[in-house]
Amino acid sequence: MSAKPTRRGRRRGVDAAPVTRKVDYRNLRNPFPPAGAFTDDRVEAIHRTALQVLEELGIKVLLPEARALFLKAGARQVDDDMIHIGRDIVEAALSTAPKSFTLHGATRDRDVTLELGRLTFQPGAGAPHATDLDRGRRPGNLTDFRELVQLTQHFDALQIVPPLVEPQDVPIHLRHYSMTEVALTQTDKVIFAYARGTPQTLDCFEMIRDFRGVSDDEFLDQPQVYTIVNTNSPRQIDIPMAQGLIDFARYGQPIIVTPFTLMGAMAPITVAGALTLSHAEALAAITLTQLARPGAPVTYGTFTSNVDMKSGAPAFGTPEQVKASLGAGQLARLIGLPWRCAAGSAANLADAQAAHETEISGWGAVLAGATVVIHAAGWLEGGLTVGYEKLITDMDMVNTFAELCTAAAADDDAIGLDALREVQPGGHFFGAQHTMERYQTEFWEPVSWDWSNYGTWSENGAQDAQTRATGIWKRILSEFEPPAHDPGRFGALQDFIAKRTEEGGAPPVS
Amino acid sequence: MSAKPTRRGRRRGVDAAPVTRKVDYRNLRNPFPPAGAFTDDRVEAIHRTALQVLEELGIKVLLPEARALFLKAGARQVDDDMIHIGRDIVEAALSTAPKSFTLHGATRDRDVTLELGRLTFQPGAGAPHATDLDRGRRPGNLTDFRELVQLTQHFDALQIVPPLVEPQDVPIHLRHYSMTEVALTQTDKVIFAYARGTPQTLDCFEMIRDFRGVSDDEFLDQPQVYTIVNTNSPRQIDIPMAQGLIDFARYGQPIIVTPFTLMGAMAPITVAGALTLSHAEALAAITLTQLARPGAPVTYGTFTSNVDMKSGAPAFGTPEQVKASLGAGQLARLIGLPWRCAAGSAANLADAQAAHETEISGWGAVLAGATVVIHAAGWLEGGLTVGYEKLITDMDMVNTFAELCTAAAADDDAIGLDALREVQPGGHFFGAQHTMERYQTEFWEPVSWDWSNYGTWSENGAQDAQTRATGIWKRILSEFEPPAHDPGRFGALQDFIAKRTEEGGAPPVS
Repeated sequence: MSAKPTRRGRRRGVDAAPVTRKVDYRNLRNPFPPAGAFTDDRVEAIHRTALQVLEELGIKVLLPEARALFLKAGARQVDDDMIHIGRDIVEAALSTAPKSFTLHGATRDRDVTLELGRLTFQPGAGAPHATDLDRGRRPGNLTDFRELVQLTQHFDALQIVPPLVEPQDVPIHLRHYSMTEVALTQTDKVIFAYARGTPQTLDCFEMIRDFRGVSDDEFLDQPQVYTIVNTNSPRQIDIPMAQGLIDFARYGQPIIVTPFTLMGAMAPITVAGALTLSHAEALAAITLTQLARPGAPVTYGTFTSNVDMKSGAPAFGTPEQVKASLGAGQLARLIGLPWRCAAGSAANLADAQAAHETEISGWGAVLAGATVVIHAAGWLEGGLTVGYEKLITDMDMVNTFAELCTAAAADDDAIGLDALREVQPGGHFFGAQHTMERYQTEFWEPVSWDWSNYGTWSENGAQDAQTRATGIWKRILSEFEPPAHDPGRFGALQDFIAKRTEEGGAPPVS
Repeated sequence: MSAKPTRRGRRRGVDAAPVTRKVDYRNLRNPFPPAGAFTDDRVEAIHRTALQVLEELGIKVLLPEARALFLKAGARQVDDDMIHIGRDIVEAALSTAPKSFTLHGATRDRDVTLELGRLTFQPGAGAPHATDLDRGRRPGNLTDFRELVQLTQHFDALQIVPPLVEPQDVPIHLRHYSMTEVALTQTDKVIFAYARGTPQTLDCFEMIRDFRGVSDDEFLDQPQVYTIVNTNSPRQIDIPMAQGLIDFARYGQPIIVTPFTLMGAMAPITVAGALTLSHAEALAAITLTQLARPGAPVTYGTFTSNVDMKSGAPAFGTPEQVKASLGAGQLARLIGLPWRCAAGSAANLADAQAAHETEISGWGAVLAGATVVIHAAGWLEGGLTVGYEKLITDMDMVNTFAELCTAAAADDDAIGLDALREVQPGGHFFGAQHTMERYQTEFWEPVSWDWSNYGTWSENGAQDAQTRATGIWKRILSEFEPPAHDPGRFGALQDFIAKRTEEGGAPPVS
């Protein structure tokens, strides 16, 4: 069998540049009917129990300012820092939290609207280590962070740029300058800032406003940067997290609330129990944002998987994680907020296990109707490492999801009765007019897959996907060009960082 | 973090045998709402066009007996072997094809009911080669076939045993004896026989009837063995395929009809066009079964993926394959028949590419509502090879699908308000009563995944999943015990084979 469609195509083309396939991976709507884990009445029961948990058992809130906001709204402080939040307070907060908002990139075609039904992807985030086949596994550094942001910028289907690895070669009181500089200059997509205390947060806000030319007033109603807040399960919101919820909310910048509740460890062993805890904590955090500023943009979230009960090791891509994702989606739809779910892998390298884990959890998140699917590419070791090769191999999954958001044509021309007439039994469609008109653009093309037959593949060195991926990320990085930006603003950014560095930077608050 | 749930568990257990997790992977019902590729009116349009193709363009039928059946029903023969089948003939056939039937295993608990909503899995089938890391890639032989049947028998979630590899060390006129002997003795699950001419088919039927103690009369109404019929796309049914459709139908044994229509090669380049052709061919084959015997059990099917238009190489796990699967599911539901769909991989080894391809096509098949998902484990090189390691690593996907068919508990006890009360902020759930009651059985356990951390994994040799899988299949084979069977019947089976071998066996018909 041999495909020779190019000849006729070329003849018609006459010096034409190669036809490129036009896809829109930037504005995705989930094509699948949302799947659920529970019957509707049990979703209601989980929601009711979560409200009961907040009201009767309470949640420990370590930041006095946050406690004061809860108490002012009518919550009760029973002992220590334990805040009991009445369901009326939570319900009021849910009524002011916006069901849709738009996170700005550097340009309007990079803006991302978060609401139920939309679908966005992020690569792996928050890893202390980076790894690739050339340089091995190492503590993440600023070069890693920059390169991984560049790889994220390269792939359209990754619409949001998270903190992929922690650049530990930069002192912690200066790290937010370096990370924000990289984020502002190496990508024009939606970017992230850590919530590690008010001084760092305000530094980041100022850098972003000035670099993007957004006035202080505009900023307050224009999401320009997001953060992620993990609660400390079970039932605790620590000082930097609470401060982040308040600061980002007051400045109108979105927070993705994500309790990290591993079933059997920091959460009950059952899917329903872990989700009840996760939901209670998410509701408390969402409530705090609305108490800080009603209408502040906030995203519901969950990160519920299980542990291996033999070792306590976190597991990802399990059926339990899928069920938790499906249940969380039902809870998100119950409260009507955009929400964050995750893919993920516990494997130590980009092998078949890693691919299965990320696929299973990725499909779980997509079928659950997640608005944001984080850790969709590159995440290894349950988040301890982001792998360059893993990022590349996972992109074939992410791009496939993006591709599935566009329906296949099914008009009469696509059905192609004339083509069926044209090709007789024993013939083939390679040369049919219907094929010629479409062959350059009909099919998706993979990033890392090798479709050559066994003989050719063996002659070419019998490389596995992970090994091929090394060459792919190197090529992308070597050809990378950062998005254009105003040289004056770049200079001002450098000046700001130099000045703040001289002033001692901003240590994280804990 | 350390999990120490065993202590208290042991204390209560008192010499107890380890608690094993009870799961039913034998009778699965698809838990997902079926997803579609097209609007309902376009599904109707594809169906209508397929009927038009059969009526106006016709299908080439090479077997005179089959042509005679079509003509007797009112079809027209216009030239050569081209049969034009009116839509009334197809519609009459669809009205007699059963919407549900039960394929028998050797015992009732291995029976499999095929109908819309049910979900069954098969490993990779029909490969000329086998491969494993120890012995390398080789032409399939009888030892490979036996071992792969044993591996299939081992995993409950594989309910149907296909012809995994072609045992080419057995002469073709005797191969069906060897394969049927292995199938009858090494597994008690649902088994397969090739449709390679009436003599081989009748040999297989006789062996199965006698070994299972089924009378000739019982056999006619009791599906005991199935076959697969691929049409020769475009629009042709060859002699052995037509003979298989007639023979299996007359004897009441099920046929899985599967046009193999690669978009851009033997089918139109569009998903809608390829499905139209596939649907037309499947309808013709289904019609022939009903003309041979109204009410004969038959399964709709499709195998529609795309080729790489640069090389003509078949591709699997692409978004186009997923869309084709989703569209085929809509067509299957339109005609109401159980149906076969496929996972698959074009990769040359069990790496990340192979896992992504099988996962993407596997999820496509499951979300499409397939009744039978073939090639769900072990299929490499687009079907040229079945890999032992690939089979093992894929089982974590198949078992996950099976696990997802059982809903997570969500009663008040599962929600676990008492557990949430018991564990305070800063604590963990490892030792909670709610955990103790469940930790031995709550979570699924993987076949090939390694959840150990990077340090432990490195110390243990830093093996990837493929390498680990070698040890796993070897252990399963070394511990394998075939299901019990009557020694008398085994002797009779051997005698039959010896007698038929002496008589010259049965060459395939072509």
